[in-house]
Amino acid sequence: MYIPTLDDMVTARDRIKPYVHVTPVLTSRFINELAGAELFFKCENLQKAGAFKARGASNAVFGLTDKQAANGVATHSSGNHGTCLSYAAGQRGIPCTVVMPRTAPQAKKDAVRGYGGRVVECEPSTSSREAVFAKVVAESGAEFVHPYNDPRVIAGQGTCSAELLDQIENLDAVIAPIGGGGMISGTCLTLSNLTPNIKIYAAEPEQADDAARSFRAGHIIADDAPETVADGLKVPLKELTWHFVSSYVTDILTCSETEIIEAMKLIWKRMKIIAEPSSAVPLACILKNPEIFAGQRVGVIITGGNVDLDKLPWMAS
Amino acid sequence: MYIPTLDDMVTARDRIKPYVHVTPVLTSRFINELAGAELFFKCENLQKAGAFKARGASNAVFGLTDKQAANGVATHSSGNHGTCLSYAAGQRGIPCTVVMPRTAPQAKKDAVRGYGGRVVECEPSTSSREAVFAKVVAESGAEFVHPYNDPRVIAGQGTCSAELLDQIENLDAVIAPIGGGGMISGTCLTLSNLTPNIKIYAAEPEQADDAARSFRAGHIIADDAPETVADGLKVPLKELTWHFVSSYVTDILTCSETEIIEAMKLIWKRMKIIAEPSSAVPLACILKNPEIFAGQRVGVIITGGNVDLDKLPWMAS
Repeated sequence: MYIPTLDDMVTARDRIKPYVHVTPVLTSRFINELAGAELFFKCENLQKAGAFKARGASNAVFGLTDKQAANGVATHSSGNHGTCLSYAAGQRGIPCTVVMPRTAPQAKKDAVRGYGGRVVECEPSTSSREAVFAKVVAESGAEFVHPYNDPRVIAGQGTCSAELLDQIENLDAVIAPIGGGGMISGTCLTLSNLTPNIKIYAAEPEQADDAARSFRAGHIIADDAPETVADGLKVPLKELTWHFVSSYVTDILTCSETEIIEAMKLIWKRMKIIAEPSSAVPLACILKNPEIFAGQRVGVIITGGNVDLDKLPWMAS
Repeated sequence: MYIPTLDDMVTARDRIKPYVHVTPVLTSRFINELAGAELFFKCENLQKAGAFKARGASNAVFGLTDKQAANGVATHSSGNHGTCLSYAAGQRGIPCTVVMPRTAPQAKKDAVRGYGGRVVECEPSTSSREAVFAKVVAESGAEFVHPYNDPRVIAGQGTCSAELLDQIENLDAVIAPIGGGGMISGTCLTLSNLTPNIKIYAAEPEQADDAARSFRAGHIIADDAPETVADGLKVPLKELTWHFVSSYVTDILTCSETEIIEAMKLIWKRMKIIAEPSSAVPLACILKNPEIFAGQRVGVIITGGNVDLDKLPWMAS
């Protein structure tokens, strides 16, 4: 298992510069007063393709040799990683295949295709996904870019907190959502090397709290298909992200579905930005645990903004 | 009638600096391809209190002598100006009274009160509003800050395009929504002095097209209570804004209600920001008139982000 280093992150930052935005950091006095802390929202929802995953995907795609790149890239993802890998591959002009359950939302399939990628459908089961994906790779020779358990992806995600350090001084803590752990691992990679005094918190839905339970148990616990409105956070930790989480994270906090939806609406209403449910989990955890963050300067990663505007979680369905 | 000058704008910019954000400029490759132009969205929806009107209101409030300020400020507005004047007065620590129809949305009343302002209700008629407002001013001695027909307000709004010029080089045109004409007048003030080659377009709903008809007729035409989803754009031009509009605007474009709602949804979906219906009118007009903007670099003012998240215009009611 290759563990990415600070050098890998620095190389990634230089490599992906032409393909990603330096995203703004926004603040809200109202939310600060509510939280009793100074919150700095790093807006990766304003990132290319609407999610921080454009960073890791771009690093993986543009780190390939021409020979590797010729066969294209492939992944399995029904979320932002598939869209972002398609975006990055489109930037390099190479093929991208994303294996997705046929039951995935049409909008997600359209997003992959919108950037030029190919969607291959599988049945909504792990066995079907693995079989279909193996076939795709065997036929195309495409390079597999895992959504998070990949050193290139983690080094790419680490560029987000490197940027945040340039933008905001004297942070006491950084908090990000945790699903598979790619963003948290990148954050750990960067901060543990550059600013080891900044505490790192992960935020997770109670209804998909496998990372929090793993953290307390001291080994990976993977749940089977948890249900949460924060649909980006359903996947389990893997060995590489577990390395970073178990080594550098201060704590993993959890919150309820209602708290996630309230925090999401608060972000929309006060910050005037579209944040997806997963992105609201850190703020929900801060508001639930004010004693942890009281008076501190906290970086909050808004991880993405890809939502179905016709089906908002606070609307009656 | 005092017509504000470039010096007034420069003074305003310095004066309001501590109280307003330098708002980011965002771009979307997808929308650019759709428009066939390079669009630079100046995000005043991310401004303090959620609208560009924080600029003009802050300039008016902080330009008062201590003696003038002691009696506070007052206005009539059921929209962003009332909220922003309350915000600015709160920053200075002086009273603010906003006269509003009793039928105005509760959220608008709450917003004024949230920043410390006082709401005085009137009946939803011009005669009642004028009578109640006259009484408020007579009793308090408060300084009247008109929502747009006020040189201090126009000088303040002009700081937005001054900022935009610092952020984006070589613009060919700037487009902003037009209601009473405060933002357009500020834009005219700044651009006609600093960069007279940049064309200025105003964008208006077809269903409230009094400014477009005024522009063609050569004199102010005021409609009685037009109905449009772009609720910030229902008010008529006044003599001061008419001066700027008639002198410096290249054209006033209009678009339908459906086009406004589609453009609004496009901004939300692709830019990941909350823009109110009025803010979507310029993009709707660009997409409707691609021949005017083809290949050009266009600044697009997103004027505000104050919407009722429980009543979105594309949702069935």
